[in-house]
Amino acid sequence: MSTKRQILIIGAGRSASSLIQYLLDKSDAENLHLVVADLTLALAETKTNAHPNATALVLDINQVEKRRAAVQHADIVISMLPASMHLGVAQDCIDFGKHLITASYVSNDMMAMDAQVKAKGLIFMNEIGLDPGIDHMSAMQIIDRIKANGGKMILFESFTGGLVAPESDDNLWHYKFTWNPRNVVVAGQGGAAKFIQEGRYKYIPYQKLFRRTEILHIDGYGKFEGLANRDSLKYREIYGLDDIHTMYRGTIRRVGYSKAWNVFVQLGMTDDTYLMENTQNMSYREFINSFLPYHPYDSVELKLRQYLQIDQDDVLWEKLEELELFNPSKKVNMPKATPAQILEKILTEKWTLKPEDKDMIVMLHKFGFELNGVKKQIESSMVVIGRDQVYTAMSDTVGLPVAMATLKILNKQITRPGVQIPINQEVYEPILEELKEYGVVFTEKEVPYLGYNQERILGY
Amino acid sequence: MSTKRQILIIGAGRSASSLIQYLLDKSDAENLHLVVADLTLALAETKTNAHPNATALVLDINQVEKRRAAVQHADIVISMLPASMHLGVAQDCIDFGKHLITASYVSNDMMAMDAQVKAKGLIFMNEIGLDPGIDHMSAMQIIDRIKANGGKMILFESFTGGLVAPESDDNLWHYKFTWNPRNVVVAGQGGAAKFIQEGRYKYIPYQKLFRRTEILHIDGYGKFEGLANRDSLKYREIYGLDDIHTMYRGTIRRVGYSKAWNVFVQLGMTDDTYLMENTQNMSYREFINSFLPYHPYDSVELKLRQYLQIDQDDVLWEKLEELELFNPSKKVNMPKATPAQILEKILTEKWTLKPEDKDMIVMLHKFGFELNGVKKQIESSMVVIGRDQVYTAMSDTVGLPVAMATLKILNKQITRPGVQIPINQEVYEPILEELKEYGVVFTEKEVPYLGYNQERILGY
Repeated sequence: MSTKRQILIIGAGRSASSLIQYLLDKSDAENLHLVVADLTLALAETKTNAHPNATALVLDINQVEKRRAAVQHADIVISMLPASMHLGVAQDCIDFGKHLITASYVSNDMMAMDAQVKAKGLIFMNEIGLDPGIDHMSAMQIIDRIKANGGKMILFESFTGGLVAPESDDNLWHYKFTWNPRNVVVAGQGGAAKFIQEGRYKYIPYQKLFRRTEILHIDGYGKFEGLANRDSLKYREIYGLDDIHTMYRGTIRRVGYSKAWNVFVQLGMTDDTYLMENTQNMSYREFINSFLPYHPYDSVELKLRQYLQIDQDDVLWEKLEELELFNPSKKVNMPKATPAQILEKILTEKWTLKPEDKDMIVMLHKFGFELNGVKKQIESSMVVIGRDQVYTAMSDTVGLPVAMATLKILNKQITRPGVQIPINQEVYEPILEELKEYGVVFTEKEVPYLGYNQERILGY
Repeated sequence: MSTKRQILIIGAGRSASSLIQYLLDKSDAENLHLVVADLTLALAETKTNAHPNATALVLDINQVEKRRAAVQHADIVISMLPASMHLGVAQDCIDFGKHLITASYVSNDMMAMDAQVKAKGLIFMNEIGLDPGIDHMSAMQIIDRIKANGGKMILFESFTGGLVAPESDDNLWHYKFTWNPRNVVVAGQGGAAKFIQEGRYKYIPYQKLFRRTEILHIDGYGKFEGLANRDSLKYREIYGLDDIHTMYRGTIRRVGYSKAWNVFVQLGMTDDTYLMENTQNMSYREFINSFLPYHPYDSVELKLRQYLQIDQDDVLWEKLEELELFNPSKKVNMPKATPAQILEKILTEKWTLKPEDKDMIVMLHKFGFELNGVKKQIESSMVVIGRDQVYTAMSDTVGLPVAMATLKILNKQITRPGVQIPINQEVYEPILEELKEYGVVFTEKEVPYLGYNQERILGY
């Protein structure tokens, strides 16, 4: 074992399954030994699964000495911890001269380590999961190619969604929870969505976010809708798209989801900032009625239709009924809860994946560019269906790029030092190539340029 | 001068004008000397106006020794500072055994001083301005009377508004800024409004707040609208209304204001949490367009009408035009600004009181109660028109109760010690009586009980 190269993986949650499986599968050929560390030993042991090339380790990252010892003994470190918890591990990696790989957004604190990391010749590779991760790599591959061919980028739109696979899609929302439900319930509440369209900055407040969707088509999978992420402009400079006219990043749902979700937003059901009264014995019907005006005898249904001006034949109504929102017998049964917590409970009853269900990851990029005076557009899309409930599409697409990057760094196929994200060809080319073997394949097609013709703008 | 009783007034802003005038007018008869302390000497001097019974003092409340000396030399202290800045002064008052009067909400920190205050036999009277202040006193006077007569309170609604006087009301919004404009722009953003109606808790999120108004009538002044305050239930226990079926506190505007204001809310123009891009050269028209979907040739007007479904003949449109929101020549001209700051600037241009303008304070209470098996309702209302731009209705109604309470405490007509608010008869009776001399008069009438008949409730 002493001759094996040791990979320390901190955090053995859902997103680590495919990552660990990939590395274990290669452990003999690549001479690897995995140390899978988690706060919960049982969880780590599930993932190592008595494999001879793996050890499970109990680790509370606040136990500094134990954490430092684990880092010191490793040849390379993967942190699958939440983004805010990487820093201690990152400092250990600098101290002991170890490379670090994470799937998290680069925090300011992480970025501040760049000089130290470079000075030691280390690679701290971040944002190398799905989103962020595969989105960066697949976008930069095409952007770099367009530029290399002499094209000038004028439009970039990028959408990602974690959905349910068509064969498991059996509810009216065409949605199930494939990741943290709370994040889905409070999505969009961080502040106004900001993007640029035809050179104009646009801002969408939370109360309008779910009514400003864009319809998307993906061959073989039909129609989807995209809704704006909070900050579409964050990667404008990083991607080298400083002068781009249109830049928009968004989340993918099936068509109709957002219009129905907007009912929750308008009622105030997604608010996670205050506790409601009397939630223990509150029925689902009383929950919805808490957000409607009082009336001595009008029904909850009539009040809701009138309040939000929902037509009698609007299909969103059946989506609400499917959740049993009007049921006076179903009880919230939580002693203290915010509206968002109650909504999450109601949704979880209906939107939990069944044992045989599969999830689906969908990604779509649109690239508009000018080449030799002609405006062109390329669309590139990827659809991944999960293998099962452990090796989900989410686990694969988050974990595999992390695992591949780790091995390529260990094997010195990726060598550029520093705190970075996978936007360089050295990184994205080999990883995108290898991802194809695992079914992560982008389909590219040229379409007519769909941006608006600047010359036709009369006013605005 | 050494025999005079010294009143220290900290903070000489707008709200201190009527307060200082009242005390100066009584200074000879009552043997008073006022020390008016402010960060700005000129402001303090404007208020003391070379009166022989007053001294202006420069005081930065963070200069602890100077502050403590000022408190030590006073016989009683009034703090007109913002609520968060009272604490140092309050501690000084305990240390030197001085009574303290403020118009601010009692903070937890202030409440925590209660035992010390009582131990020293001191009175820390808070919330004795307009709202909070006159609202507490005028409500408790009637509530105590109803209870004393054997009535059982079943409904309490209370509304207050700072508006423009009818003779100065010359814009379509029927509104001008009579207080801090920023507070008006961000009003309602602190969290969902919460109240109880016919025994049911109700919650209104910000995005619906301005569409859930209640129409109010005040004899001689016509129709108004009330919109819910954040927490209507805060005073339920304090007022002794624990079992009340309906409790609602709100803000008064003229009818139609809220429907038009809702346009700003829906667009996201009241957001004070992020800086917009390119605000220096942004026109008002571009400002509104930032919140609308991009279109190559549809006008801002058409997009707005479509987006918020505003009918061609909706009168709110003229309210928007009056503000010149569609004007492409008017420039924001601010280097960095949030949407709320830009909106405040646009509104301030149109909603600033002219030199001859007068403001108006409106307060309305509704009391529902059961007496001998019969449901009854009393409405009590107050309208105060400002005297001029210095002695505004706002300054009078905030400052006069503070001044009156100060003098009555100094003269030992109010004696109950402790950190308190004016809900005791000892306080509200004499002050409400004296306020009448200054035109602060409540008109009471009995109306049919307007609460909903519990027996008619079939479902809900």
